[in-house]
Amino acid sequence: MAVITNRYIAIKTHINGAPKESDFDFKTETISLSVEPGSNDVIVKTLYLSIDPYQINRMKTSSSSQKASVFAAAITPGEAVDAVGVGKVVASGHPDFKKDDLVSGVISWGEYSIVKGGKMLNVVNLMGFPLSYHVSILGFSGLTAYAGFFQLCKPKKGEKVFVSAASGSVGNLVGQYAKLFGCYVVGCAGTNQKVDLLKEKLGFDDAFNYKEEIDLESALKRYFPDGIDIYFDNVGSEMLEGAVANMNIFGRVVVCGAIAEYTDARKRARLDMLDIIYKRINIQGFLAIDHLNVHGDFILTTVDHLQNDRIQVLEDISHGLENVPNAFLGLFSGDNVGKKIVHVADA
Amino acid sequence: MAVITNRYIAIKTHINGAPKESDFDFKTETISLSVEPGSNDVIVKTLYLSIDPYQINRMKTSSSSQKASVFAAAITPGEAVDAVGVGKVVASGHPDFKKDDLVSGVISWGEYSIVKGGKMLNVVNLMGFPLSYHVSILGFSGLTAYAGFFQLCKPKKGEKVFVSAASGSVGNLVGQYAKLFGCYVVGCAGTNQKVDLLKEKLGFDDAFNYKEEIDLESALKRYFPDGIDIYFDNVGSEMLEGAVANMNIFGRVVVCGAIAEYTDARKRARLDMLDIIYKRINIQGFLAIDHLNVHGDFILTTVDHLQNDRIQVLEDISHGLENVPNAFLGLFSGDNVGKKIVHVADA
Repeated sequence: MAVITNRYIAIKTHINGAPKESDFDFKTETISLSVEPGSNDVIVKTLYLSIDPYQINRMKTSSSSQKASVFAAAITPGEAVDAVGVGKVVASGHPDFKKDDLVSGVISWGEYSIVKGGKMLNVVNLMGFPLSYHVSILGFSGLTAYAGFFQLCKPKKGEKVFVSAASGSVGNLVGQYAKLFGCYVVGCAGTNQKVDLLKEKLGFDDAFNYKEEIDLESALKRYFPDGIDIYFDNVGSEMLEGAVANMNIFGRVVVCGAIAEYTDARKRARLDMLDIIYKRINIQGFLAIDHLNVHGDFILTTVDHLQNDRIQVLEDISHGLENVPNAFLGLFSGDNVGKKIVHVADA
Repeated sequence: MAVITNRYIAIKTHINGAPKESDFDFKTETISLSVEPGSNDVIVKTLYLSIDPYQINRMKTSSSSQKASVFAAAITPGEAVDAVGVGKVVASGHPDFKKDDLVSGVISWGEYSIVKGGKMLNVVNLMGFPLSYHVSILGFSGLTAYAGFFQLCKPKKGEKVFVSAASGSVGNLVGQYAKLFGCYVVGCAGTNQKVDLLKEKLGFDDAFNYKEEIDLESALKRYFPDGIDIYFDNVGSEMLEGAVANMNIFGRVVVCGAIAEYTDARKRARLDMLDIIYKRINIQGFLAIDHLNVHGDFILTTVDHLQNDRIQVLEDISHGLENVPNAFLGLFSGDNVGKKIVHVADA
């Protein structure tokens, strides 16, 4: 019965505002790599971790994290940060999982996770794709993009779609799904390299660097002379204000993220409700977790696109558990290009 | 062929900000009270005028009134202000209308209106109710409340409903429909008399005077300890912010008006998009004009409520064309209790 030292990462205290390296602690614990008789726990060795900006909302003080806690429990200082990832089963007391199974689900920022009762774990069917795809395009980022676009944006062919944070984990896929569906798609990103990528590799009709624009409302008027029908919002704040000002009648805003607000609560979107009323705009916040009913469709459609080279996989992979805090911090300065993943260990 | 002097009201110039009496001009013109052969115009004597806050949006300068002009043409300085009202046909070249018919539709802030081609006029079926009802509960205010509540709020029995400007033309009816439907309803208004009226005459479960509250978010937490499921917004600004902060998961905000913003463009709602995302809140702007398909249901249901004394009619009637500007100005200081109407002449 192997007993090993597990390294994991915790937050030292709650984090309000922009996170910094010193907010995180590397800790160790001694754990047994076998499951006690009668337990249905599953011990998972971490292979890939999904690094997601919304996690910052779970790290805030309890008063400000009430919103996050509606969705997921706040992250407790001192304890391993839990996160979506894929790993390999080291030991299992659960009938659905056996040693060496590849699994995806909620594990932790650590080398090993003990998943109580195998809760929310699923056996990964590789389907011939790299394991990393199962935390990116075939994981929650993909489902978020697919459900957000097809279920919530209610697109019609030919409609004009704006995607913010368009080279991010979800944005790049929303833009690609929208193009494949037959929409006109413009994305914005924070560097010229990302803008080139959107236009040249991902097939966006157009893209712009929002950091080079003084006035987002005017910029969007240039890129959408006939107005925006659908805005897939990952940003909030001035980006959302500019989009609403340029929306067409019966336009839809689907709010997936508000990264501008995550680390600065003052950066709220100041919405002109006259636009909302007269243009009958609909704004819908959503979480992918509510749309597991389309998971089957999402996988079938996306695998088909992948097998026929119609969709690009944009992953930004760091290596080693020690790089998790940095990878996470980088999300808030736009370091990542595509889905941020940390490769913790090989299978 | 009678030729008479028609008195009417125009705006002197575009109005930005709060309107004042001196923004309006009483003018006269000489018109013939007969229709030229071959014309299908309808000449209407004004009886009752609907006085509505949204009209201020049509009075703004063209740049800022673009939003209004999506819905209705901007009001032109010097020309009679057009408005919904009821009147009596004086002369008609249109086969659908004959002399002495009572009609409702878009007429003007004047003693007489020449309605080109009888456009948007309808013959009024009194159904035994006072004529004024046809610009209030049985007119656009009623349809707005009915369609807004039943079509857009998608209520379920027992849900918690918050209505702002709840003693106003639309708000008082939304609250009454919501109570009749089986919701828990709290309204807010700007005087204690209005609050008493909501609770004692209109059957609201509770009501409060927002002017006596320092912090609307805390106030709403007191009135909705279990959260708000539906917010029918007539106000915007801090009221909307406070409501969003108190919304439940899958809450719906239906935006009918934003009176706080109408006369002060800076009074935008600063929305916390984390609430919108994590609580999957839906915000929908609407105009009653899109919901004429429920007009039949609306009339049947409302007439039935009226005939069985289940719904109260809250009208605030001034008399004489000369009081139209004052009646209009009063909307922005909360002078009106219920639907503001000006009785211009008797049939």
